[in-house]
Amino acid sequence: MWTGRPVGELPSPAFTVDLDTAKRNAEKMRDRCKALGVVLRPHMKTHKTLEGGSLMTGGTLRKIVVSTLAEGRFFANGGFDDILYAYPLPFDKVEECAALAERLDAFHVLVDSHAALSLLKKRPLSHGKRWKVWLKIDCENHRAGLRHSDPAALELAKAIAEGATKLTGIYAHCGNSYSCHGASEIQAVARTTTALTLKFMDQLKEAGVSCSICSIGSTPSCSHPVPEMAQLSEVHPGNFLFYDAQQMMIGSCQLEDIAVRVLTRVIGHYPHRNQMLVDCGWTGLSLHSLGQLPTGYALVEGHPNLKLVGMTQEHGRIEPVAGKLDFAQFPLGSLLALIPYHACATAAMHPVYYVHSEGRVVTTWKPVRGW
Amino acid sequence: MWTGRPVGELPSPAFTVDLDTAKRNAEKMRDRCKALGVVLRPHMKTHKTLEGGSLMTGGTLRKIVVSTLAEGRFFANGGFDDILYAYPLPFDKVEECAALAERLDAFHVLVDSHAALSLLKKRPLSHGKRWKVWLKIDCENHRAGLRHSDPAALELAKAIAEGATKLTGIYAHCGNSYSCHGASEIQAVARTTTALTLKFMDQLKEAGVSCSICSIGSTPSCSHPVPEMAQLSEVHPGNFLFYDAQQMMIGSCQLEDIAVRVLTRVIGHYPHRNQMLVDCGWTGLSLHSLGQLPTGYALVEGHPNLKLVGMTQEHGRIEPVAGKLDFAQFPLGSLLALIPYHACATAAMHPVYYVHSEGRVVTTWKPVRGW
Repeated sequence: MWTGRPVGELPSPAFTVDLDTAKRNAEKMRDRCKALGVVLRPHMKTHKTLEGGSLMTGGTLRKIVVSTLAEGRFFANGGFDDILYAYPLPFDKVEECAALAERLDAFHVLVDSHAALSLLKKRPLSHGKRWKVWLKIDCENHRAGLRHSDPAALELAKAIAEGATKLTGIYAHCGNSYSCHGASEIQAVARTTTALTLKFMDQLKEAGVSCSICSIGSTPSCSHPVPEMAQLSEVHPGNFLFYDAQQMMIGSCQLEDIAVRVLTRVIGHYPHRNQMLVDCGWTGLSLHSLGQLPTGYALVEGHPNLKLVGMTQEHGRIEPVAGKLDFAQFPLGSLLALIPYHACATAAMHPVYYVHSEGRVVTTWKPVRGW
Repeated sequence: MWTGRPVGELPSPAFTVDLDTAKRNAEKMRDRCKALGVVLRPHMKTHKTLEGGSLMTGGTLRKIVVSTLAEGRFFANGGFDDILYAYPLPFDKVEECAALAERLDAFHVLVDSHAALSLLKKRPLSHGKRWKVWLKIDCENHRAGLRHSDPAALELAKAIAEGATKLTGIYAHCGNSYSCHGASEIQAVARTTTALTLKFMDQLKEAGVSCSICSIGSTPSCSHPVPEMAQLSEVHPGNFLFYDAQQMMIGSCQLEDIAVRVLTRVIGHYPHRNQMLVDCGWTGLSLHSLGQLPTGYALVEGHPNLKLVGMTQEHGRIEPVAGKLDFAQFPLGSLLALIPYHACATAAMHPVYYVHSEGRVVTTWKPVRGW
């Protein structure tokens, strides 16, 4: 119903995706991986849409990563295959994983414990199919995974490689790249994660454990890859389709690479407190910047002197960074474009994304939600 | 598909509602309003479900407040009427408001500017029906609304009362009660908001402007009403159906009044950093406590020594508040119940609520999303 209409007519708040920018981001990442000689297995968690997945895979609909089983089902039903559920195997979802593993060419699961592995061993797949299992290792990111240097990691890898399960890949997430500032800090993290992952692969080889794939990822590291990453088989960044203010501040992208906005309208003028209200609260943006940007909870496109100082459920409060607000410049009903701090979090608040090109809506995307 | 099954078997993360507690909260608030002699017009924004609305209205499905037009349409389609869209009239949604106003017995809109009012005047309703318009006044809350003491408020009230629009109500939100600690601070805010609202009603009367309804609201103030509130016609709290850790800390409720939880399972043990992971990240809880609770981002039911120290999209990191974590107490796959800091924000992350009684799921509720 919105197709063909100017973006400025959209009901607000609206989550918009600049299709040309998103396409360019997807192509750049594919080119970067091609030049490096590694397979790109993009992560779907930021956008959670079939269309975004198609752009990221260059239309192949093969080799993706998902963060929830709901995404796994959604992408499988949407024609995708070779799906890695890169999440410590949840004990309540083994049967559903088995159904996907039996139905798809390749539905990979991930473990970092013997307890999880034993659930897989206890539930062999039909027709003698072996579970494709990845081992998650922790290369200084300190979230999930067995530490790369922990002998238990090698032991678990060996156990995975036996019987009803097959050791398909080694997975490391360099989420610690999110605390970097600038390409050289990002590259230092990428270099360390790569080196530790490759060292682990060498240990596997020495131990006679067969494993063909190793993958690291994060949008910062894959936006500034180091040459050593050429020795990996895969990378798995996700945010890069959209990018956001956080990625810009980390140094992963430039302002012009950010494909998403939240459109919002001015709904109130309050000159006595030098403030205006807009129709975007935390249901439209999330609280993810924690207000720590110099411009508060978001960047207001084209208005560096505006600061989104606070949000309640459906209201945003905007003040000037300095001086008096020129209310005549922002009449009631006028439109502002907020550049989100964290695109994953902002996208998660919207049941529909309005996708535009050259100022007009070209389509809408509907993300999957839940688990 | 989940009906009749034990709550402990739900897939995690799961947003659960204890039906008996929610019913009791709804009844208590209705009894409180009845005793006070004011009409309860409950706000739907926290739960956004037909079932929650039915509980809050005691089955009448009449006299509710909504925060988005999507809620307005949803509740209208679900058989509700006498709906107040208590939000500064958005300029892009006038036509949709008109459709609801023409279709329902009573669809009320709210303004705090002449610019918004003029949009209504320019779009008269069919069959000579007059727009039911509420004026929002700001009684020291400092969000939307004209200041109670501003002569412009009286002028706008007069303008609303003319022609195609009818001044139906005066609306004040005492959101400033959210910074209170304890009943006496809450009651001071309630007293001030009530006094300022009633004073404004007196001014209207003196000016010969007819207006039958005045309403104030917020869950803290309506959980601890002051006798003066008896002079109001209505109150419009919303959160009280669920309550949450924030309301408990403000002093609106006790722990046993909190009807909602997020069930989550342990997915990883990391003894070397004295930490375990659970399968609830910010997509399942929101970041709304900002980690400022003594127990981090939530309360872990029955485990006051556990602290949810951080969350990423799908992972939560739990540590002991002090000492060594007893991992044997929390085997992989075991279930924990998180008590949310802000139920409105947590509910907003879930496409389905699992409603239970006496340990078993009795039904599911599906909230409306979007705008």
